[in-house]
Amino acid sequence: MSRKNAFYAQSGGVTAVINASACAVIETARKYPKKIGKVYAGRHGIIGALREDLIDTSKETVNAVRGLLNTPSGAFGSCRYKLKSLQENRAEYERLIEVFKAHNIGYFFYNGGGDSADTCLKVSQLSKALGYPLQAIHIPKTIDNDLPYTDNCPGFGSVAKYVAISTKEAAMDVKSMCETSTKVFILEVMGRHAGWIAASAGLAAQSQNDAPHIILFPEIIFDKKKFLKKVSTIIKRNGYCVIVASEGARYEDGTFLADSGTRDAFGHAQLGGLAPTLAQMIKVELGYKFHWAVADYLQRSARHIASKTDLEQAYSVGERAVDFAMQGKNSVMPCIVRKDTKQYKWSIGEVSLHKVANKEKMLPRTFISKDGYQITKKAVEYLQPLIAGEAYPDYRNGLPRYIELKNIGVKKKLRSNFEL
Amino acid sequence: MSRKNAFYAQSGGVTAVINASACAVIETARKYPKKIGKVYAGRHGIIGALREDLIDTSKETVNAVRGLLNTPSGAFGSCRYKLKSLQENRAEYERLIEVFKAHNIGYFFYNGGGDSADTCLKVSQLSKALGYPLQAIHIPKTIDNDLPYTDNCPGFGSVAKYVAISTKEAAMDVKSMCETSTKVFILEVMGRHAGWIAASAGLAAQSQNDAPHIILFPEIIFDKKKFLKKVSTIIKRNGYCVIVASEGARYEDGTFLADSGTRDAFGHAQLGGLAPTLAQMIKVELGYKFHWAVADYLQRSARHIASKTDLEQAYSVGERAVDFAMQGKNSVMPCIVRKDTKQYKWSIGEVSLHKVANKEKMLPRTFISKDGYQITKKAVEYLQPLIAGEAYPDYRNGLPRYIELKNIGVKKKLRSNFEL
Repeated sequence: MSRKNAFYAQSGGVTAVINASACAVIETARKYPKKIGKVYAGRHGIIGALREDLIDTSKETVNAVRGLLNTPSGAFGSCRYKLKSLQENRAEYERLIEVFKAHNIGYFFYNGGGDSADTCLKVSQLSKALGYPLQAIHIPKTIDNDLPYTDNCPGFGSVAKYVAISTKEAAMDVKSMCETSTKVFILEVMGRHAGWIAASAGLAAQSQNDAPHIILFPEIIFDKKKFLKKVSTIIKRNGYCVIVASEGARYEDGTFLADSGTRDAFGHAQLGGLAPTLAQMIKVELGYKFHWAVADYLQRSARHIASKTDLEQAYSVGERAVDFAMQGKNSVMPCIVRKDTKQYKWSIGEVSLHKVANKEKMLPRTFISKDGYQITKKAVEYLQPLIAGEAYPDYRNGLPRYIELKNIGVKKKLRSNFEL
Repeated sequence: MSRKNAFYAQSGGVTAVINASACAVIETARKYPKKIGKVYAGRHGIIGALREDLIDTSKETVNAVRGLLNTPSGAFGSCRYKLKSLQENRAEYERLIEVFKAHNIGYFFYNGGGDSADTCLKVSQLSKALGYPLQAIHIPKTIDNDLPYTDNCPGFGSVAKYVAISTKEAAMDVKSMCETSTKVFILEVMGRHAGWIAASAGLAAQSQNDAPHIILFPEIIFDKKKFLKKVSTIIKRNGYCVIVASEGARYEDGTFLADSGTRDAFGHAQLGGLAPTLAQMIKVELGYKFHWAVADYLQRSARHIASKTDLEQAYSVGERAVDFAMQGKNSVMPCIVRKDTKQYKWSIGEVSLHKVANKEKMLPRTFISKDGYQITKKAVEYLQPLIAGEAYPDYRNGLPRYIELKNIGVKKKLRSNFEL
């Protein structure tokens, strides 16, 4: 087998540990100099391939590549760009193959969530149809934790850890002040479709009556009357109430709470803001003093408190992706397999992209308490190991030492430009 | 001198390290068994003294007290309760003295900001007037960093570190996604009157064009036209723009941006939310996709990433407060003195409460760049040492091991109750 270059791209929302997967791909590829030439990364993800805007990672030092392990966000840039179906835009796929051909790329590593697993599969299928040999391996990544077949998704464990710790810390603050001040605290977290992230806040509760007292999941229809009654009961019992709300919380008709009719001075719909909406609801109906926080990007970029387990898994899926390619595999994804042991143990398995593409793994109803406001013991058993361990970056002058790569471009070989 | 008990109370908004001061007071008092009997803490701060609701810290183990060093929030509860002036409500002060007398309290340690320094001074004055000997020592604490005479305030360095790191991490996220997604990110931070916290975000910028690109200070009048032009220029140059906004940012007429006319479906003023207000302004006027975060309590309770310098200073002021009392001092506050050395060094000094009470230290104009959107080199030199060093708590099962005290009450001796 002749030597081929590899292409690696980051896709969709970035995470605290996606660069650990990148680190693994580059480090592992460098162990196979006879089979893998250079690893090219797409600048801004798959767009970089379409535009023939490739980054030559061979220009990066060993230390710089290692530094990726401790650096959040996407070191080569990522994008939200979903390739259309083959029927709708075959030209995009053909362009990818054209670029790969021009740069002698034989390995395609795509690091993303459900959409990119689907793209990865299509690219693999088309390369076969066009007679251009390409091994396409998908590397799982998503804070949403909604990929099927893998026990969990790299990126999720670190968000879960951030959310559990932040909930615990803020709850202690509210508790110590509630006698004369704030009685209600609301933390809004990500997760528009699935409640995995909101659920992880439940880990903060270590005994009964501990915060969070109410979790709002996208999976459970929001019932205003029941909710307000619950808030009131909790404050009467505890003196304060901590609520963690998924941005995806919605009414029976499907309307997001965050879009529930607030208008600014110009009459525009007030964008975003589930937490302030809930706070206002509680203020108006129950009269309690409140505070709210919206973690937004802070939660998915918080490398300073990443989960060690998550980091190790993110590295392992990247490493095994290259191993799979070296074993001649195609259209597969390394996945995390939870072993059936009392103490948490995991290994890396393999799953076909035919199975993974276009499926979402929702939070099981058995992970949510009967009343819909808490997580169950089963959920704790699943979630807890994923936040275990700390993996602190190095610091200088009080700030984490995050790497910035040189990201030197590869000379273009094609004459044509490609309009997105 | 006969043995007297000590009273300790936490006042106002809590911090990531106020319990380190509590730890120091208790540990240091235990070194003077001949002079100090028990340390009683006020349950919910000064309210605990007024209600004769005291906590007996002698019931806590050595390990539990040590655990306070790594525990955020107020371990005995705090309160927002400002005692009126002596003229307005002399009864409150007399009640304090009555409770102190009943419990043989000769030392009053009050851990708070400007208001509590004033209360501490008045209690000391009244005890003299009433002929009841009491040594009143104020222990500085405030994330607002606005106490005079001390170089900085315990609690601030940890918020500053949290804000600088969060800004850096979120900015990396935005940068890596900006090609196809979010172009503007806004982080709202605390600081209604002074811009110290917002300024600390500026530490995240390590070279030119680094985020944060715009900081909004309460000290600089908000100019919408100039601001939007700046946002637009930055996005054209960098591809994205990161804004850190102090909740106290305001228009020329004094109106907070956060209160600028948004109404909910019921016509109520939309409470809070400077970040969404700015985001909406940018969306309407410039059309850019945005994200925003509001850190709220997360920033002041983030013990998981507290500044080691801050932690050490919080301990030292507590320790020296007890030493001062043992030296017969009264109406004083230990303060942090920055030494005139190239490398940052500090020591603990002493300042009279007459000087401290009712004064606020604002962010100097020389700390803000000419255009009003950045911090200067002078600000960096002041701020940087305050976030230096990490002081990680222990973890179990992926979560910090924060202490919960027993907080056993002291038997009441007075027949009278006191209505707040």
